[in-house]
Amino acid sequence: MARPVTEEATVVADRLARTQAALRSTGAVALLAGVGADLRYLTGYSAHALERLTLLVLPATGAATLVVPRLEAMAAEACPAAVAGLVDLVAWDETDDPYALVAGRLSDAGASGAARLLVDPGLPARHLLALERVLPGRAFGLATDATRALRIVKDAGEIELLRRAARAADRVVAQIAAGRLIGRTEADVSREVRERLVAEGHEAASFAIVGSGPNSASPHHDPGARVIRPGDPIVLDIGGTLSGYGSDITRMLWVTGGDPSRGPSEEFLAVFDLVRRANEAATAAVRAGVGCAALDEVAREIIRAGGHGDAFIHRLGHGIGLDAHEEPYLVAGSAEVLEPGHAFSIEPGIYLAGRFGVRLEDIVVCAADGPDVLNRAPHDLMVVDG
Amino acid sequence: MARPVTEEATVVADRLARTQAALRSTGAVALLAGVGADLRYLTGYSAHALERLTLLVLPATGAATLVVPRLEAMAAEACPAAVAGLVDLVAWDETDDPYALVAGRLSDAGASGAARLLVDPGLPARHLLALERVLPGRAFGLATDATRALRIVKDAGEIELLRRAARAADRVVAQIAAGRLIGRTEADVSREVRERLVAEGHEAASFAIVGSGPNSASPHHDPGARVIRPGDPIVLDIGGTLSGYGSDITRMLWVTGGDPSRGPSEEFLAVFDLVRRANEAATAAVRAGVGCAALDEVAREIIRAGGHGDAFIHRLGHGIGLDAHEEPYLVAGSAEVLEPGHAFSIEPGIYLAGRFGVRLEDIVVCAADGPDVLNRAPHDLMVVDG
Repeated sequence: MARPVTEEATVVADRLARTQAALRSTGAVALLAGVGADLRYLTGYSAHALERLTLLVLPATGAATLVVPRLEAMAAEACPAAVAGLVDLVAWDETDDPYALVAGRLSDAGASGAARLLVDPGLPARHLLALERVLPGRAFGLATDATRALRIVKDAGEIELLRRAARAADRVVAQIAAGRLIGRTEADVSREVRERLVAEGHEAASFAIVGSGPNSASPHHDPGARVIRPGDPIVLDIGGTLSGYGSDITRMLWVTGGDPSRGPSEEFLAVFDLVRRANEAATAAVRAGVGCAALDEVAREIIRAGGHGDAFIHRLGHGIGLDAHEEPYLVAGSAEVLEPGHAFSIEPGIYLAGRFGVRLEDIVVCAADGPDVLNRAPHDLMVVDG
Repeated sequence: MARPVTEEATVVADRLARTQAALRSTGAVALLAGVGADLRYLTGYSAHALERLTLLVLPATGAATLVVPRLEAMAAEACPAAVAGLVDLVAWDETDDPYALVAGRLSDAGASGAARLLVDPGLPARHLLALERVLPGRAFGLATDATRALRIVKDAGEIELLRRAARAADRVVAQIAAGRLIGRTEADVSREVRERLVAEGHEAASFAIVGSGPNSASPHHDPGARVIRPGDPIVLDIGGTLSGYGSDITRMLWVTGGDPSRGPSEEFLAVFDLVRRANEAATAAVRAGVGCAALDEVAREIIRAGGHGDAFIHRLGHGIGLDAHEEPYLVAGSAEVLEPGHAFSIEPGIYLAGRFGVRLEDIVVCAADGPDVLNRAPHDLMVVDG
């Protein structure tokens, strides 16, 4: 009953059809997607992740069903896939058992016996355990098997959304660097970052890491009561989502309080320079056909040669899209090879526990002719009065 | 090796010990908690929910382990449970297999054979399926079995945080009602709500429903391109987290544009009055010993008697704490009975598809002597020029 009526509907119709083909080729009988990126990708439906079951039941062949709580039905009906008649909407009431309902739909779709079912990677245990109970004997796997080849390649519309998110985050970095910092707690600056991300159009400010002084050595420092003072380095790693797509940028600040004697040390500048060179060399190496592991090694080799190999304690980067972290991962051991349309972070770092840390991160798209760096904020260490 | 050094550490030490006792009494050998409310409740550790495994392994007897990605180790070390030596921190590197590491810890703790393991309800399928694979034959259940009796009763400190979150949300409602509305899209007003929630101290603005005109009839309307105009009712249902604890309030606006002829109809006022009476009667009925289903029925009976029983399409309310929705649920069929320290929403609603909807929601604590309503924003329909 597909009757695509809008551009959005055409996009999701194509994604649903390609996912069904992928299900058939992997031998799975259905994909089950709860609230999250797969659901949004396949139907355009962006729902709150709460405890009631919302589930797209997409069989390898035949009509898809979107199971939703009654009170979400009106919102779900408005999603592109429902408007275009690409999914059959089924609402359940507060005292119904939605898992039995799903099992019934799957058995209508022929998914019995030892059938293989794929669930989205974010599906909460409360739902997965209940589904395993009503569907005994089935083999459960991850939906990534069917969706990764689609989702990993961003189309022009997705890249444009990633670009808008990146530019909004760039502006927030500039705003924070231009404002007062000294005498404020990390938590207070973090709150300002969140406000500014929303003011710049993000619907959610997912993280706002402000790691000052020695806290900069903790890559995912939780901003707290430490007061920023002259002579502090600051790791600013911020992001969220804009129209569903993620931003994620890291820049370095140094706060002097206007006192030239409180500037960065030679050692800090040398570490900063190493991280910057690692970032820029890895970015320059982005092109279709390059391995994700090889790209990680480009950055790692520079940091190793600079004597800080042990202090680069994480992978080079992660894919980004409807999920903040998704395929491809730029990590040692990966067999993934870059293709046009892959979007990912490049974020080498050096962390010296108890002293300081440095990270520089951009979102980069692998374009037909090489890297398309979505962030435009300069890489320079921002030495500010604060 | 417990050496509580702070009030926070004393709190988590007590929670860990009581959870271990609950595990023993339910016959489970361990609790596995990923990033989320259970982890925060038991360790004080608030982490980003990303794809790398972070997992508290709490055996029924013996020492707890907190498994974290290497780059999170410094942040995890700072959590109250780690600082107090209540958990043994184990960091894994990017190319390690963290699931094998967890299986090893469990086997050291004697969790072999057909042992029963409890996982937190929010644990994503990517982790649960991997754990099922490395721990074949184990029976997996929900951590709620061990934690619900603890988490459902809020202590004084938790109630104070819920109160601060509620008051902050109250202020945002007043700010939005005092501002311009006409000529703006729902999405734009929703963005302003998110900004204001953060400005009032929330670390996350989780939802900001602005349902105007006929969109007010969709309980969880996704704010969109509709422009607010004179004669519109607006459902404002907003909330987020402040110090980890949730806010959640719904108030009703009516926008006249300064034109007295564009005020609410008699029918709207009658529906509003019904919802208000349902809210206030259910709230007045809150006391220890009252059933959650009975409380739902107090509100439902009023709305039914007013002729709109079919239009109250959801339960009366949900518990709130570190999770936006948690036990107790005020719903028909529940066997739960209110106790002092239970915290929950009371939010009756009437939804007339294609026309309008009305909901009024407060967060209420069951105190020793009856209801303690955390929100202070008046219930009145806010008729504004807009």
